[in-house]
Amino acid sequence: MTPPSLFEQREGEEQLSFDPASLPADGHVIFIGRINSPWTARQACPKNMRAAREARKTASISIDPPYRPGLRGLEGVSHIFILTWLDRSPRNLIVQKPRHATESKGVFALRSPVRPNPVGLHVVKLLAIDMARGKLEVDAIDALDGTPVIDVKPYFASVDAFPEATVNRSGE
Amino acid sequence: MTPPSLFEQREGEEQLSFDPASLPADGHVIFIGRINSPWTARQACPKNMRAAREARKTASISIDPPYRPGLRGLEGVSHIFILTWLDRSPRNLIVQKPRHATESKGVFALRSPVRPNPVGLHVVKLLAIDMARGKLEVDAIDALDGTPVIDVKPYFASVDAFPEATVNRSGE
Repeated sequence: MTPPSLFEQREGEEQLSFDPASLPADGHVIFIGRINSPWTARQACPKNMRAAREARKTASISIDPPYRPGLRGLEGVSHIFILTWLDRSPRNLIVQKPRHATESKGVFALRSPVRPNPVGLHVVKLLAIDMARGKLEVDAIDALDGTPVIDVKPYFASVDAFPEATVNRSGE
Repeated sequence: MTPPSLFEQREGEEQLSFDPASLPADGHVIFIGRINSPWTARQACPKNMRAAREARKTASISIDPPYRPGLRGLEGVSHIFILTWLDRSPRNLIVQKPRHATESKGVFALRSPVRPNPVGLHVVKLLAIDMARGKLEVDAIDALDGTPVIDVKPYFASVDAFPEATVNRSGE
């Protein structure tokens, strides 16, 4: 689903000459669960995890029954990656100009939901697990209620935490 | 492609009653590039990013021509996420026992390439970019040469770095 009307195009943006959503598939994803969040309208949904944390609302992830045994062992993990499938975003905008930005940027330099493969990546704190109901309670989420989930992974500080990482924010 | 012969099954492991690779697609991915790594044999390939860094071999990512404008702005970024599509792994093992582990764990508590959606997540240091050739040089990678790439994202310390994250490694 690609409702481009939701996404105005801005000066300095560039489209691909084709729509990735119309290309033959190189691989296929299945949904393993859904996000349950307080955000039912795109306008109210936090645009990133910082804004989501500032909103001070918890959220949860529901994992579908066949995949629930896959949660075993997560109870010892403090933080997780959630990968979502942002299927309400167009996929054909390769250079974008975020609202309030002075310069356009390539999609791979942005965390925009609009990308060739609409995979969202969220690092969240795991507050509680209900194994039987397949429910993960997390500290915050920057995704609409009902967003499909395609993967959950444990976060390992040893290979995933780079507090020294920098971004030159000129133009952002 | 699912050559289960590459993956022996171990005691305590659990299979799904179906193969996610055979389900109808909920969404489709396209490959936007490939990993170029020193690892051409599965036996030699580092099993995680820590082992990859210890091997002290750089790697690169080649982005296909139509997607190269998407790299604009990445030159100011020190670390990136790479999402890969691990299409040589089976998808139907929901509880797994990693080699050398004493206990089996659910797939969502592991970074195993064997998962319902075979998406690999790698945080790497970006050493250099050749925009014209669509090439990203990175400090290390724990993926086989030729592995398809489905996304690149900037790493933001403010929302992605949790050095305080912990894992109860009992059983690992």
